[in-house]
Amino acid sequence: MTPAELDQWSDHGLVVVENALSRWISPEAPAGLGEAMRYAVLDGGKRLRPLLVLAAREAVAHGTTDAALDEAALRAACAVELIHAYSLVHDDMPCMDNDVLRRGKPTVHVQFGEAQALLAGDALQALAFALLTPADTTIPDGVQARLCRLLAAAAGHAGMAGGQAIDLASVGRALTEDQLRHMHRLKTGALLEGSVMMGAACGAATQQVWIGLQRYGQALGLAFQVVDDILDVIADSATLGKTAGKDAANDKPTYVSLLGLEEAKSYAQSLLREALDALHSTGLTHTQTLAALAERVVNRNT
Amino acid sequence: MTPAELDQWSDHGLVVVENALSRWISPEAPAGLGEAMRYAVLDGGKRLRPLLVLAAREAVAHGTTDAALDEAALRAACAVELIHAYSLVHDDMPCMDNDVLRRGKPTVHVQFGEAQALLAGDALQALAFALLTPADTTIPDGVQARLCRLLAAAAGHAGMAGGQAIDLASVGRALTEDQLRHMHRLKTGALLEGSVMMGAACGAATQQVWIGLQRYGQALGLAFQVVDDILDVIADSATLGKTAGKDAANDKPTYVSLLGLEEAKSYAQSLLREALDALHSTGLTHTQTLAALAERVVNRNT
Repeated sequence: MTPAELDQWSDHGLVVVENALSRWISPEAPAGLGEAMRYAVLDGGKRLRPLLVLAAREAVAHGTTDAALDEAALRAACAVELIHAYSLVHDDMPCMDNDVLRRGKPTVHVQFGEAQALLAGDALQALAFALLTPADTTIPDGVQARLCRLLAAAAGHAGMAGGQAIDLASVGRALTEDQLRHMHRLKTGALLEGSVMMGAACGAATQQVWIGLQRYGQALGLAFQVVDDILDVIADSATLGKTAGKDAANDKPTYVSLLGLEEAKSYAQSLLREALDALHSTGLTHTQTLAALAERVVNRNT
Repeated sequence: MTPAELDQWSDHGLVVVENALSRWISPEAPAGLGEAMRYAVLDGGKRLRPLLVLAAREAVAHGTTDAALDEAALRAACAVELIHAYSLVHDDMPCMDNDVLRRGKPTVHVQFGEAQALLAGDALQALAFALLTPADTTIPDGVQARLCRLLAAAAGHAGMAGGQAIDLASVGRALTEDQLRHMHRLKTGALLEGSVMMGAACGAATQQVWIGLQRYGQALGLAFQVVDDILDVIADSATLGKTAGKDAANDKPTYVSLLGLEEAKSYAQSLLREALDALHSTGLTHTQTLAALAERVVNRNT
């Protein structure tokens, strides 16, 4: 798949995801809560996690369509994005990173106040699980339950939230590469890997496929973070749409501070090879979008 | 059921729930997160919501046992308690109620810092959904999905989180009784009603049973809040285990400020009659524990 073909695929996916998010995050939630939730999620973000869900669904669908499983994948795509968005809202708050800029806009607590930001994040997490379990649907119960299981594990103490706790505790401390990898595997890796696995859960995946896609998700998740650390050093705030140079300013351990810039870049490339190799190991024939997404993650500028 | 019989029933239920919570909230979550999560949940609280789940399960079980559905009910009982506990952690934070005392102990952010309190609350919400969707289980997929659906709705923007947003927006404002009822129906009512419905989802409930139990849950939820408002006025902090007189100090609208003390008491009694009438309407024969719980909620001193 060429970069132009990936653009075409992702442009289509983004429209579908954006429309679904806008439909499913009701502006009618009371007392301004809906407004804060929509502000936190809509009209911004690269939507990498939703695209991973859709690409993984495509890989296990073998070129077929199924209305119920396609709907499940779209719901899963939106649910992971809600989890990602809520984590950014809470992470930006004064008691955490105290950041005022996100995607070029004031952060949610700057715009709506801290209390509303806290509640909006909480409500977005609940909404993620509501999206996965609609009442009137033909999505099989087993798929609904499995999606909830995967998302809860990726978001919780053994995933994203646990990684953030390690991150908190590690500011100003020297970490080994193993410790840094463990932190990122939870903090950002778990939800990226979870996105791939949720897409895979919207279809029939053999054990071999499941293991291969998991390995792909893990390599991609780690590569994402290595590249994030590189961009924090070499890009500027305007390009990133968020404050650059933040890690060094906050004395946070990164792959660049640990490995040096050149070795971090070469590590990212080796993780890309690992991800592509893992895709190959599944034996699936519709993995070209997953492969192109991994290449984009590693070779991105923002 | 006599008060002594209810004590015996609830003493047993509390031991089972307490042990399960302790088993399922791993102390091994990284970087102190598990410790903060356990502190927030274990060894405290009246566990009204878990008891409602178990009593509702009992009502729809018709005196039979079923290992899978009994496990589902225990998981649901713990999951609603995790949601309740996380809401208290976030609600106590400086940007919300800024409270330092909860169940006679320092609040989570006082004990562990604000950032850890924020993360512990987030991780408890995720864990609630993880508990409902275990990987190795005989709990039917449909029950798992339904429990997630009920919990997500009760916790989210159309339930608890939405009610808290209304609460935030209403400080210092005059509310009508309808507005106050709407706020409480969401803020505390939704999760109490949700507890009853989750118990009912762990069994075969006809439409008549479902509607009756929902009416019971709604009346009980509202009664709980009316009595809470009464106790905030007439009890002291030592008895309550939290700061008394807080509502008046914060200029929050309450049933006592709106109706007066005597009329609030009589309203609580009429809600109790409504709850008991709703139980009767189900035609179920094993509702004596639910009835006794409603009486205890309305006639409690703390």
